[in-house]
Amino acid sequence: MQSIEKESAIAQDYLSKISVQAEALFDKYLPPVTDQPCRLHEAMRYSMLAGGKRLRPALVRATFDMFGGKGENVEYAMVALEMIHTFSLIHDDLPCIDNDDFRRGKPTSHKQFGEATAVMAGDALCVLAFELMGKTGNARAIEVLAHLLSTYGLIGGEMIDIECEGKEVDLETVDYIHYHKTAALIEAALQVGAMLAGASDKDIQIIRQYGRAIGLAFQIVDDILDIVSTTEELGKDAGSDIEKGKATYPSVVGLDKSREKAKELYEESIRALDGLSCDTNVLRAIAAFIITRVK
Amino acid sequence: MQSIEKESAIAQDYLSKISVQAEALFDKYLPPVTDQPCRLHEAMRYSMLAGGKRLRPALVRATFDMFGGKGENVEYAMVALEMIHTFSLIHDDLPCIDNDDFRRGKPTSHKQFGEATAVMAGDALCVLAFELMGKTGNARAIEVLAHLLSTYGLIGGEMIDIECEGKEVDLETVDYIHYHKTAALIEAALQVGAMLAGASDKDIQIIRQYGRAIGLAFQIVDDILDIVSTTEELGKDAGSDIEKGKATYPSVVGLDKSREKAKELYEESIRALDGLSCDTNVLRAIAAFIITRVK
Repeated sequence: MQSIEKESAIAQDYLSKISVQAEALFDKYLPPVTDQPCRLHEAMRYSMLAGGKRLRPALVRATFDMFGGKGENVEYAMVALEMIHTFSLIHDDLPCIDNDDFRRGKPTSHKQFGEATAVMAGDALCVLAFELMGKTGNARAIEVLAHLLSTYGLIGGEMIDIECEGKEVDLETVDYIHYHKTAALIEAALQVGAMLAGASDKDIQIIRQYGRAIGLAFQIVDDILDIVSTTEELGKDAGSDIEKGKATYPSVVGLDKSREKAKELYEESIRALDGLSCDTNVLRAIAAFIITRVK
Repeated sequence: MQSIEKESAIAQDYLSKISVQAEALFDKYLPPVTDQPCRLHEAMRYSMLAGGKRLRPALVRATFDMFGGKGENVEYAMVALEMIHTFSLIHDDLPCIDNDDFRRGKPTSHKQFGEATAVMAGDALCVLAFELMGKTGNARAIEVLAHLLSTYGLIGGEMIDIECEGKEVDLETVDYIHYHKTAALIEAALQVGAMLAGASDKDIQIIRQYGRAIGLAFQIVDDILDIVSTTEELGKDAGSDIEKGKATYPSVVGLDKSREKAKELYEESIRALDGLSCDTNVLRAIAAFIITRVK
């Protein structure tokens, strides 16, 4: 096995390659700004094309390829997963929710376009994501994606996150928030990629286990970076978790134990992949990247 | 042919019957308030179970039955269409959009639960609608529904509606807003019902024509009622269109011409139905109800 740093470098190369591919697809499937309602289409493009790691499209692509998927359905799902991620960020940033002014180094949607347009840009991205998923012809994948985004997934995690702001919380609650708010959509990206490729139920279970582990690790690393990085490094307000009294791993168990937990989750994710007979190199590399990333 | 008043009475009986059926289904498919996040589930139920005509579920049911549909897929679609309608109302009522305090005689979602919960209750209903549509196994119906809800449908109409507030607009713009903001989802309800029943493409085209006609008529009647009714009669703020400088039929062509147009659209919808060979009595009655309704 290679060193974790080498693995991470492999993942970064992969993510760079997929970013270029994914951004071309976003441009292809986002409505043009010349179509009515122009300003809303502009707002959708603004947030979708503001950069970012494109982790979710990469997870869709990697899993689809790993399970031998063929055809263009993967493209719809790559775009849909990033649209759903962007929709959740636009709404989370709203003044009535997290009230954030910056995201990926740029003013947030409501700062740039006003609140009404931001609410509707989020709605429109969510709806367009399901339209694209409809084009895959795989209704079961749509059901799975929607469930992991629902009040039993991402939206549920976000709601409890807000309700816990400024309150003393235990580790169980932080786990609930992180598994729902972050891990659910990462799990969804992997599962949708696997389903579109026609993976077996057994393999899908394994990929979900991997997803839950790297999803939680991803959010713990996010929590750590919010403390140890500057706003410039992050492209969003650093230190905002503490300021808002957010429930985070470091706030409950401290920085060192948070780092240990991330490492344990990394190992758990790798062990899960051992259950697969296909080539899992890309997913191993992505797991390494997730716990070593600095932004 | 029966008088339009008799037709309307038949439709009211049908809508009452379907309301009872639909509300039992809402209760069945909405998450229980005892599940986390409880407050969000409470907000979803509050808006979904606040009454209303249940026109969209009735259109799904009527079309499904008319084309000889069998099985429980229709239930998922009836619930999904009302969830999408409710999601759009919750977000439209937000302070940053239409800023309405009352809906169906009760405080709007953000008045009752706060803005953050209202934004997320809308999001959650939209997502749950697609989860239920996923259960139908009909990915093409999901694509159609999402498209009619997108920036080329309902959301697009709502955006242009906001942009035109307080401006002088022409009839073409009012038609654009009404066809998108209102007719699109009515068309979607009919088309989804027909698709789930396995109707032919030719019959689906006819049902869409009917839908566009009654959809526009529905919104014109809404505009008229906003002027001639009291807040108590409507269950929402009467006169609010004029107050907000909304683009409406009466504001552009006056009340009399608006009434004439609604009548013409009714006749257009009935002519469309003449192209079908099945029993269209329920849809004829609903068209009559739409132009004679007083709330």
